[in-house]
Amino acid sequence: MTTAEQDVSGAGSQPLSPDEVRLINAWWRAANYLSVGQVYLLANPLLREPLTPAHVKPRLLGHWGTTPGLNFIYAHLNWVIKRDHANVLYIAGPGHGAPGVVASTWLEGTYSELYPEISQDEAGMCRLFRQFSFPGGIPSHASPDTPGSIHEGGELGYSLSHAFGAVFDNPDLVAACVVGDGEAETGPLATAWHGNKFLNPAHDGAVLPFLHLNGYKIANPTVLARIPHAELEALLRGYGYAPIFVEGDEPMAMHQKMAAALDAAFASIRAIQQKARTGGGTAERPVWPMIVLRSPKGWSGPKTVDGKQTEGSWRSHQVPFTMEKPEHLGLLEAWLRSYVPEELFDAAGRLRPEIAALAPVGDKRMSANPHANGGALMRPLKLPDFRDYAVAVQQPGGANAEATRISGGFLRDVMEKNAANRNFRVFGPDETASNRLQDLFEVTSRAWDAEILASDDHLSPDGRVMEILSEHTCQGWLEGYLLTGRHGFFSCYEAFIHIVDSMFNQHAKWLKTSKEVAWRRPIASLNYLLTSHVWRQDHNGFSHQDPGFVDHVVNKKAEIVRVYFPPDANTLLYVTDHCLRSWNRINVIVAGKQPSPQWLTMDEAIKHCATGIGIWEWASNDRGAEPDVVMACCGDVPTLETLAAVDLLRQYLPDLKVRLVNVVDLMSLQPKTEHPHGLSDADFDELFTRGKPVIFAYHGYPWLIHRLAYKRANHENMHVRGFKEEGSTTTPFDMVVRNELDRFHLVADVVDRVPGLGAAAAYVKQAMRDRLTEHYHYVREHGADMPMVANWRWPGAE
Amino acid sequence: MTTAEQDVSGAGSQPLSPDEVRLINAWWRAANYLSVGQVYLLANPLLREPLTPAHVKPRLLGHWGTTPGLNFIYAHLNWVIKRDHANVLYIAGPGHGAPGVVASTWLEGTYSELYPEISQDEAGMCRLFRQFSFPGGIPSHASPDTPGSIHEGGELGYSLSHAFGAVFDNPDLVAACVVGDGEAETGPLATAWHGNKFLNPAHDGAVLPFLHLNGYKIANPTVLARIPHAELEALLRGYGYAPIFVEGDEPMAMHQKMAAALDAAFASIRAIQQKARTGGGTAERPVWPMIVLRSPKGWSGPKTVDGKQTEGSWRSHQVPFTMEKPEHLGLLEAWLRSYVPEELFDAAGRLRPEIAALAPVGDKRMSANPHANGGALMRPLKLPDFRDYAVAVQQPGGANAEATRISGGFLRDVMEKNAANRNFRVFGPDETASNRLQDLFEVTSRAWDAEILASDDHLSPDGRVMEILSEHTCQGWLEGYLLTGRHGFFSCYEAFIHIVDSMFNQHAKWLKTSKEVAWRRPIASLNYLLTSHVWRQDHNGFSHQDPGFVDHVVNKKAEIVRVYFPPDANTLLYVTDHCLRSWNRINVIVAGKQPSPQWLTMDEAIKHCATGIGIWEWASNDRGAEPDVVMACCGDVPTLETLAAVDLLRQYLPDLKVRLVNVVDLMSLQPKTEHPHGLSDADFDELFTRGKPVIFAYHGYPWLIHRLAYKRANHENMHVRGFKEEGSTTTPFDMVVRNELDRFHLVADVVDRVPGLGAAAAYVKQAMRDRLTEHYHYVREHGADMPMVANWRWPGAE
Repeated sequence: MTTAEQDVSGAGSQPLSPDEVRLINAWWRAANYLSVGQVYLLANPLLREPLTPAHVKPRLLGHWGTTPGLNFIYAHLNWVIKRDHANVLYIAGPGHGAPGVVASTWLEGTYSELYPEISQDEAGMCRLFRQFSFPGGIPSHASPDTPGSIHEGGELGYSLSHAFGAVFDNPDLVAACVVGDGEAETGPLATAWHGNKFLNPAHDGAVLPFLHLNGYKIANPTVLARIPHAELEALLRGYGYAPIFVEGDEPMAMHQKMAAALDAAFASIRAIQQKARTGGGTAERPVWPMIVLRSPKGWSGPKTVDGKQTEGSWRSHQVPFTMEKPEHLGLLEAWLRSYVPEELFDAAGRLRPEIAALAPVGDKRMSANPHANGGALMRPLKLPDFRDYAVAVQQPGGANAEATRISGGFLRDVMEKNAANRNFRVFGPDETASNRLQDLFEVTSRAWDAEILASDDHLSPDGRVMEILSEHTCQGWLEGYLLTGRHGFFSCYEAFIHIVDSMFNQHAKWLKTSKEVAWRRPIASLNYLLTSHVWRQDHNGFSHQDPGFVDHVVNKKAEIVRVYFPPDANTLLYVTDHCLRSWNRINVIVAGKQPSPQWLTMDEAIKHCATGIGIWEWASNDRGAEPDVVMACCGDVPTLETLAAVDLLRQYLPDLKVRLVNVVDLMSLQPKTEHPHGLSDADFDELFTRGKPVIFAYHGYPWLIHRLAYKRANHENMHVRGFKEEGSTTTPFDMVVRNELDRFHLVADVVDRVPGLGAAAAYVKQAMRDRLTEHYHYVREHGADMPMVANWRWPGAE
Repeated sequence: MTTAEQDVSGAGSQPLSPDEVRLINAWWRAANYLSVGQVYLLANPLLREPLTPAHVKPRLLGHWGTTPGLNFIYAHLNWVIKRDHANVLYIAGPGHGAPGVVASTWLEGTYSELYPEISQDEAGMCRLFRQFSFPGGIPSHASPDTPGSIHEGGELGYSLSHAFGAVFDNPDLVAACVVGDGEAETGPLATAWHGNKFLNPAHDGAVLPFLHLNGYKIANPTVLARIPHAELEALLRGYGYAPIFVEGDEPMAMHQKMAAALDAAFASIRAIQQKARTGGGTAERPVWPMIVLRSPKGWSGPKTVDGKQTEGSWRSHQVPFTMEKPEHLGLLEAWLRSYVPEELFDAAGRLRPEIAALAPVGDKRMSANPHANGGALMRPLKLPDFRDYAVAVQQPGGANAEATRISGGFLRDVMEKNAANRNFRVFGPDETASNRLQDLFEVTSRAWDAEILASDDHLSPDGRVMEILSEHTCQGWLEGYLLTGRHGFFSCYEAFIHIVDSMFNQHAKWLKTSKEVAWRRPIASLNYLLTSHVWRQDHNGFSHQDPGFVDHVVNKKAEIVRVYFPPDANTLLYVTDHCLRSWNRINVIVAGKQPSPQWLTMDEAIKHCATGIGIWEWASNDRGAEPDVVMACCGDVPTLETLAAVDLLRQYLPDLKVRLVNVVDLMSLQPKTEHPHGLSDADFDELFTRGKPVIFAYHGYPWLIHRLAYKRANHENMHVRGFKEEGSTTTPFDMVVRNELDRFHLVADVVDRVPGLGAAAAYVKQAMRDRLTEHYHYVREHGADMPMVANWRWPGAE
């Protein structure tokens, strides 16, 4: 029997004195009162005069249903924190219940410290009410401006993975994570429970989940509230938790039950951690406690409205009633007065001292927990000199390397240099080795606290490589880790990063809004390495081919997003180093893992990447004059094909003046007015000319280049090749042929667009057609690429 | 005790005779042999001569690890199907195991029937081997060209929701769904287990999940394989299943165990269905059986390679060994010969008759199950005349309606007219009523087979509205339902449809490839209604504001995707009807649910939507001449703001010739060469002129319009307004102001771009600034929009 299970038996006890129950209940009433006030009131916050329509907001917005449960848990956590000096972060999965979260932070004083105009008095209370869901005020969900929050809760599903991310490497921290029963139906949440198999009780903190069964979503019951008790308990035990049930609707009894449950849960957490930290070891994964709170939706709200059940019903989900019927004014006043505000607040509108004394003080307040403003705790990573990992490149194409493997060596040493600080982890869905970052395993392991066999490869409870076959969980863990002031790196198959499109959206929105909140400190950037990319899905084919994440990313605010396409290992090293030094951004790096020719020495790579875009003189023969054609490329495979096309052009059309432009920093294509990395029009025209044909080979969907460059002078002459959803399980070169991104098509594109080539044009086009025919025959005969294609070298390369 | 649990006790029995075991094992060996052959061999398929390097493929691709388990289950299902005349669809979650799936379909003869060149003889076997993962051949995953498959399995997580979707309204069908233990870690799969709360044993078929614990992913153990047995069993019971465990690695014993497990499972399914279908009723949700198969990864493959464990290890995940070492040739030959092919195939290369006799015949073969080529079963929907639901519009803006509520009336009658056919369902994450489609509940309910309380609203085991708070599950159910020949409609909050971006990708890819497979019949389109859109998130704010799904959609093949922005209720009716009649497409409809002015009579709506784009003469004053400015709009809110801007222009600049162009069919903006709905350049120029300013108010991210229209003659004069990630919980009009899409900004845009306005320009711009200032003050003072804005009417409208 686990510690948590032993303690559950104490749940029938009465751990609180009558006076303690009274005080905790008073706090809860105060928080509920303030919550209702935020939803409904514009004025008369303490009901000093009878309520009139003028006191009520013209537009009633907000979510009441989940709020009293959030307030109930918050009040009880405060009790435990104060008594036990616990270090607790509050994560409200139902962030819709912002009125409750905000109310508690105001009661604790944090809100007024950060926003002095929302003072702890009647005037401040009035402003607190007015600002909620009000133009120019605060939004309706917990958001970056909410003290103590790292979780918006607007899009449901991510609270529990955020909680695990927050406690990794924070041994003293407890993330109290409220999971709504609506949220519990989402896939990301359903798998996030398994975070306990990746948590090390010796060096990580604890997650204390509260499954809040209030029974209803917007208009429906919830699945977990409508399965038999035994089935629910089996499910939670199956997830590896020891659930403690707190069920009912009578507040006084519920206070005792919740206090007992929390006592049991915190005791269990302490016992587990103590055992793991005193040599008890990690032989067996502990069964962590969790709490199931089953309480009415809209608890303490109106029982019925217009004769229909409201408390304990989905009708409490948002605003339980509007003001369209005059009699609702009385209903609202009676509801508000049911909390007896005059008992809770003094004449000045301050929370009465004996109630206020329930809250912890200073940083122990959940609303002031330093981990919730993680940037303030963030220590920059110690980074080795990335130049030390350079691939020696005697001449362009004169070396071969797997780009991600090289950067894996760099990441290994980043991991090692920061091991003592325990503030860097690498995340990925079972793909770290597949993505050639396996050097990391020289200095750390995969985190794993489930069963380990002798035959296993680098598994350890103390591992710092986080692998679970859930992109959602990887992303959620990483977000939680970053938001609490640490650093991370996420490597993923390019196609499947779309699985977290929506999580990316929410993180980008969080960052954008955070920058507008004065007290939030910058956090480390979220760094994606997208590899196993569209052009090299040799094992997988069409289902694994999608380069569209970048299209999705660039819709977000320019100050937040960066996209890099390093064409070889040395440029990837530069970009990786750069991203790890940055903050408050989302960096997307797209790079291949397959053996490929290397183009730039480290010095050249630094120069090239610092600008983000540039002419490769060694591949150009325009010698500073206006070229006949610009061959632009972005991405490792397009760069290879473009260079091979330039080689062909030299053979077939030696007099043609060709300029090669390589793009590392995709945002350089946008106008400077649109993105801080955008080139000025003058610089852009200098590179791309104002009237010559540009053949642009791009890694992803070709339209993105047009979307970025449509304002440029020479845009109408830009012809872009890229992925157009053609492909299957085939050879690497056949993939580019199917999408017409190969060297032969590129040469044909040049010939089609450069005027004045005369008879040579037809000759070269026929030659390219012949080469393609040769390819078609060869690949279907041999199932492999023609040697002269597969082994092509840049002229002069060894 | 449930039926399944009772039967489990029989799992220790020996249901098969020795001869039956021998034959089933022979089938399994044959399927395994063919699987290895597909991965490795180019020639010498029956090993008639000693293996040489020339017989081996130059590029070795494929996934062996999961394959023997898939083959094992397939062989045993055949046994049951044949004996019991069962109707079984096979869904291989690990579609990576295509060599196995394809092998079984070849053994059954279906493959050769559909692809005669892959005949059931030595030559056909040789072509079968050669084509796998070979250029011009078949891809490495189960794919549309795989007989019997509705599930690619390339991207993991969706097998179980596909299985539930397939059996809804197919009472005789059993979907045997193999869930890999890697896939089981994904969020979508983790919540898909709850499909059993939405399954009606009386009218739906059964899902029989096989959780296949082979223990490893690419390089890692799996979570579910490394938790204690009791925990795993609790988890599965918590999900509502009675698990039957089949565990081991000794084939003969395993055959008996699997046969006993299947006997128990099918008996349990029959008992549950019989009870529900003979008046035993649905008072209690049944506990459905499932099977846990714990077997070695790469079972029957090489035990070790180069001294390292391979069978039962992640090293079996893909190709267990390459041919780089000469000694591996012998390893391969020994492995292949271990199946004793000469016992399995006759001299001609045909499966020996006594083994072939194990397979069911005709449509009972899983590879020939008609449900897997659902288009062949599809009956068109009976549709009422959408014109009967028209909102009466006496003059533009002269009526007010909630567009989605109107189309909800139409959908209600679609539901009713097809009730007897049981081939139409509506899907959505708890938002059907919120999205104003509640008229559906006049004729059906929400599907719900968990506990029902008297106070519940329209819940029934027989409901046809599918609501679970998981966009993944809704999408997976709908895909499974469509792929088996039925019809559906998915309504979703616009922002959160991004949650299924990646599932959309895979379905679009499936449709694209299906069209290239001659024997696949077209299936009904996947229809999305995106509402509760970016401009009207009054209750929710920034986290709920994202119109970017359309950007994602348009990257897919033009013949697959359609995007519609009906500006009012009558156009939405037309578009909804149109989408429900279409096939093999993904239709995205974006429409608002809030009360809004109505612009077009039904006759006008039909004419407008049939073209997809057009001039609204009544809002234009260019009278057929070249206008001074084109005001284009796409989306309901942009249309409203554009009309209000036109109204202002008439007041301030009555001599200005304004043309209003409204876009319903977004793809009309693309060139005809890029999309079948694209306008010809001549038609485009006719609408947008070749040189006049175009002020384009678009619903989503403005860049998308540029990406679609960049090739058009007048593109450089197009100025697009749209959503630029500004917003919060605020008023509807303040939202458009923050994004500069409002009437005042649009008028200012006109003034900035139309030349020759002289002093009027400055005057009008100042007037617009004043109106904006007035707005800012009003909204911050009152928390609501200025009455003259909120109540604006088109001139002449009542």
